[in-house]
Amino acid sequence: MRTVSFEDGRLVLIDQTKLPEKFELIRTRDLDRIAQAIVRLEVRGAPAIGATAAYAMALAAEQSQAGGKEEMLEALRKAKAALAATRPTAVNLFWALDRMMAFAEANIDQNLANLPALMLEEAQKIADEDYDINMTISRYGDKVIFDGACIHTHCNCGGLACVEVGTAMGAAIYAHQHGKRIHVYTDETRPRLQGAKLNVWELDRAGVPYTLIPDNHAAYLMKLGKIDMVFIGADRVVANGDTAAKIGVYSVCVAAKYHGIPVYVFTPRSTIDMQTPSGEGIEIEQRDPDEVRKINGSLITLPHANVLNYAFDITPHELITALITECGIIYPPFDEGLKKIFSG
Amino acid sequence: MRTVSFEDGRLVLIDQTKLPEKFELIRTRDLDRIAQAIVRLEVRGAPAIGATAAYAMALAAEQSQAGGKEEMLEALRKAKAALAATRPTAVNLFWALDRMMAFAEANIDQNLANLPALMLEEAQKIADEDYDINMTISRYGDKVIFDGACIHTHCNCGGLACVEVGTAMGAAIYAHQHGKRIHVYTDETRPRLQGAKLNVWELDRAGVPYTLIPDNHAAYLMKLGKIDMVFIGADRVVANGDTAAKIGVYSVCVAAKYHGIPVYVFTPRSTIDMQTPSGEGIEIEQRDPDEVRKINGSLITLPHANVLNYAFDITPHELITALITECGIIYPPFDEGLKKIFSG
Repeated sequence: MRTVSFEDGRLVLIDQTKLPEKFELIRTRDLDRIAQAIVRLEVRGAPAIGATAAYAMALAAEQSQAGGKEEMLEALRKAKAALAATRPTAVNLFWALDRMMAFAEANIDQNLANLPALMLEEAQKIADEDYDINMTISRYGDKVIFDGACIHTHCNCGGLACVEVGTAMGAAIYAHQHGKRIHVYTDETRPRLQGAKLNVWELDRAGVPYTLIPDNHAAYLMKLGKIDMVFIGADRVVANGDTAAKIGVYSVCVAAKYHGIPVYVFTPRSTIDMQTPSGEGIEIEQRDPDEVRKINGSLITLPHANVLNYAFDITPHELITALITECGIIYPPFDEGLKKIFSG
Repeated sequence: MRTVSFEDGRLVLIDQTKLPEKFELIRTRDLDRIAQAIVRLEVRGAPAIGATAAYAMALAAEQSQAGGKEEMLEALRKAKAALAATRPTAVNLFWALDRMMAFAEANIDQNLANLPALMLEEAQKIADEDYDINMTISRYGDKVIFDGACIHTHCNCGGLACVEVGTAMGAAIYAHQHGKRIHVYTDETRPRLQGAKLNVWELDRAGVPYTLIPDNHAAYLMKLGKIDMVFIGADRVVANGDTAAKIGVYSVCVAAKYHGIPVYVFTPRSTIDMQTPSGEGIEIEQRDPDEVRKINGSLITLPHANVLNYAFDITPHELITALITECGIIYPPFDEGLKKIFSG
């Protein structure tokens, strides 16, 4: 089933904070609740957040009491601002909000009463496109996987991070389903443990051989020759190829460089931000220190411990071997390759 | 107070699995219980394990029903073997056991009834020496710390890892107490969280400004220019300078090399193993997968998740700037420097 879908007038999300212990769905049409779900990481992963925000914009149109066009656009702008304020780093959120807003502006001159239904169709289109894009990315990713490959990954970039299928893990699962013998080493991904909770759940369900490791094991496994390639899901790729991804990806990429191991960054076109020239322009979200101080609600340190909790880091393009997109595999120089897929 | 001491006929250990929530002491004269305390990490840190094993050998002598010398030596050899089987990597354990066994053999020809008391004195000497060595190491370590330095560390190498004072954290606390403005960034150190639990407790008590970070943040903080030097406590340093230390140290050292940040390894002479020529000869302990699967007793993944849980990794000497010992600071070539302090 899909991570993000729409049924009986309500947005339906798999509550990713409950996995792998419990499989629970959030069903809501409340915009505040949806914003909260993004902030709390009940829905997370750049493409999944994008689809969620698109459905939320359709719900905002439906719930608006607007009597006229300007009033409707004002209501949508307000909803867009509230959704945009949830998380600053992943670019799909802004991409989906911009697309939905532009769609509303382009269609507002038609029958106003019909706009919510049209916007819901557009959100549905974004979700369906995400599925197709992920399938295409998975097939491109499969091309770099050889039979017997050991793939290292950090954080979740599987179906749960998207509408379905996944990007980096989509490729690994595709390779497995098509007969390649692979092994996935996944970092646990502190503090929110997306690797331990979500990757393990996905890989286990898909029957892919895997090993869960604490984040601090990765470099040493590379030294021991256990890792052939690194697969990363991006939260934002900018014009020169610099990549914002889950905190810890930079550490993995430095270690991969040191050991001569290729790093593949998986990124749908909607995760690429051509307006920002380099990684220095990306705002990095800092999250609640209690995410580090507590695990499953239980303190692991002093309650007043001073903590730094970055949600993401930025990996400079020189540490990246290739970007894998639905338009193909892009090798350096990334600025030229990226320009091409946006001009084509 | 001391991490490891002897009072009223019993070994007294700070239970390090209870910190920082509770300060509890283990008081015991039971050899099985002492071995269990080492296995469970209730006492951990290479020097602290060494002192614990020394006291345990004295208790073994006292509890022996041996009527003759050979019987006594046999009882001691049995105790030594049981204690040696607790953990394979840290060398102080074997060093302390060898020293106590050699002491027994050298003194067995005196009054047999007096041997336990003599062995207790020898164990006490090991503990007192550890305190003095740590003070000397701390003063040498202080020499590489400049005013305003930001020090990164991984796992606990403070007083709790030793009898008192500490090695790497001993130096940091010494610098702080002598007026240098320093800041310590400590990794949380998954899976057992010695950084989050023990370093935070020690640094907080000592009033040293610190920040706790997940292990995956370290490389990125180096990139952001927040780290001036890395301080590591060794579990075993071999003849060419290769160093076994807490899993994750290798990752930190690779990142430090990439960013041109110096790495200082703190090691008392008793942690140096001149019999092993290079890191390839060091056995690396693998621990219970449940240490990764559960935190504070609570599952963070599927109960049957496949897990790799190395206790240590090996950092090759080319990633190390200097070894800081009680005999001085040793710069490369380490093989020559180490030979000198053992021949002197």
